Amino acid sequence: MSQKVTIAVDAMGGDHAPDVVLEGVAAALAADADISVVLCGPKAVVEPFAASHERCRAQVTTQVIDMAEHPARAVRKKKDSSLVVGCRLVKEGAAQGFFSAGSTGACLAAGTLVMGRIKGVSRPCLATVVPSPVRPIIMCDVGANADCKPDYLVQFAQMGSVYAQKIFGYEKPSVALLNIGEEDTKGSQFAQDAHQLLRRRVPNFVGNCEGRDVLAATYDVVVTDGFTGNVCLKTIEGAAKVLFGAVKDAMMSSTKAKIGALCVKDSLRGLKDVVSPDTYGGAPLLGVRGACIVGHGSSNATAIKNGVLTTARVVRQGVSEIIEHMVAKGNDSDTITQ
Amino acid sequence: MSQKVTIAVDAMGGDHAPDVVLEGVAAALAADADISVVLCGPKAVVEPFAASHERCRAQVTTQVIDMAEHPARAVRKKKDSSLVVGCRLVKEGAAQGFFSAGSTGACLAAGTLVMGRIKGVSRPCLATVVPSPVRPIIMCDVGANADCKPDYLVQFAQMGSVYAQKIFGYEKPSVALLNIGEEDTKGSQFAQDAHQLLRRRVPNFVGNCEGRDVLAATYDVVVTDGFTGNVCLKTIEGAAKVLFGAVKDAMMSSTKAKIGALCVKDSLRGLKDVVSPDTYGGAPLLGVRGACIVGHGSSNATAIKNGVLTTARVVRQGVSEIIEHMVAKGNDSDTITQ
Repeated sequence: MSQKVTIAVDAMGGDHAPDVVLEGVAAALAADADISVVLCGPKAVVEPFAASHERCRAQVTTQVIDMAEHPARAVRKKKDSSLVVGCRLVKEGAAQGFFSAGSTGACLAAGTLVMGRIKGVSRPCLATVVPSPVRPIIMCDVGANADCKPDYLVQFAQMGSVYAQKIFGYEKPSVALLNIGEEDTKGSQFAQDAHQLLRRRVPNFVGNCEGRDVLAATYDVVVTDGFTGNVCLKTIEGAAKVLFGAVKDAMMSSTKAKIGALCVKDSLRGLKDVVSPDTYGGAPLLGVRGACIVGHGSSNATAIKNGVLTTARVVRQGVSEIIEHMVAKGNDSDTITQ
Repeated sequence: MSQKVTIAVDAMGGDHAPDVVLEGVAAALAADADISVVLCGPKAVVEPFAASHERCRAQVTTQVIDMAEHPARAVRKKKDSSLVVGCRLVKEGAAQGFFSAGSTGACLAAGTLVMGRIKGVSRPCLATVVPSPVRPIIMCDVGANADCKPDYLVQFAQMGSVYAQKIFGYEKPSVALLNIGEEDTKGSQFAQDAHQLLRRRVPNFVGNCEGRDVLAATYDVVVTDGFTGNVCLKTIEGAAKVLFGAVKDAMMSSTKAKIGALCVKDSLRGLKDVVSPDTYGGAPLLGVRGACIVGHGSSNATAIKNGVLTTARVVRQGVSEIIEHMVAKGNDSDTITQ
């Protein structure tokens, strides 16, 4: 039996909410009998679902934050939105984790403002599981902090390492800095400064990596500022979409190719699942008090299910507590790889 | 008959020099009877080749710049290297353009220091043709300036537009800023400042784009600082390599898939050529006096051939002169789209 955990879920998050959210929550509840869900959303959505599903409680909310709203402003104003209420449930201890596939900006704002930063964490960062066909790796920050100071990256490295270790079982995760050359002296002034700090303060830091190393999964954890990380992540997503589209077109370009396509279809479908962000179900906001996982706006029911299950795993593995302990200890980095 | 042009070529540039360089130069000479080449390199390499090829002159040099050397230092010290001599030939008027597949850093340093900046250009930028299966587009800067000021990007936009117009025939090229959100107010402080300047000073600026738009070729010209551009470009290259590798693996995963693979092989090979950087043969350094094209270190003979032909095309289209005129005119942007 696993540890019993309660996850607050934003019923209204994502492009296909609430239908796929409900479907995904049902699947998560069925997959893990030790998970309970507090479903946050409008009465008409959450009450019938809670009534017909075990281990699900309805939390009626009256406001919804749209994708287009200014994140921090919306979070401050819409105190009875599903997103803000979900985070508040974690803060108040009624749930241990929160999952939403809503506006990433609003999730970051709610996670940071409502759940609150762990004491000593300069900036929470959004980490992502890079959907590599080689193996999953962690990249952070991918968008919480467009402007970073070099020393933020030391904590990103530490927090990302905890996640890689506890969620993916990478014993002593290797950390690399995303840069534009392998040599220590390469890159922008920011990257050079970050390199020096990482070298001094993160024992599992192995040096610079380049854009090509990310999807190739050369290292376990890639750290970068939120601007570069976001560009890199979206470049990968775009490249996968364009290249798979082009492969599909090429396979439709002649009768011979079409026949071949029928034979390789099943094998390629497996690959497509591997490189889909849906497989991992969401990006953790690291450095806040409690588990907070942000799903892709385009999440399908599988992605929602995986997102809820990941949130439970983050709670059970005590990721937030380990980060808190690590930061409090001061000599942060020693605890990462124990 | 085309305009006669003379191109200086670095015989020692690239991982597979000089063999593939010689093969590529021979192919370029055969493809265009109005091109002459001055081949720069060691006596034993360049003299026999020049003796056995029409329209090729040997320029004996005694030094070679390695990939590992510090670029600017090597350029200053090794005045008789093939790379420095090639750029000097352009400066002195003995050639109109220079092509090398050598160390990118050293090419940028030699282009800027030896050929010299166009008056009024703050920083030359390295542009690249993004190898998209949709269509070729231009991204700049991709590595000449790791640290940029927002106003550099205005000139990058102008210079990239000239290249897109003159080399790819895009009549009124659309320019987008690589950022982490579509709204004007998104991004780092740098990106927000650059956005405002581009909005004011570049009439063909259309707004922000994201990482996913680059390979999708949503816009004709993507501008960014050299750090972000380099990360983005290498991410695309890495993603293409990993994803094509994974497709290949998937096609070998069962007997049925293997049979299918035989049928789709030809169609996929065509696609692989399209997304290969070799097809476009090099990245132009824009803003220097004369044509300067930098090839990929891993260039094969086809890439070298295409690089030499592209250099000739840049000369014939007067890219450098148009940029000079545009900058001198002060009201830069008006000339771009005429």
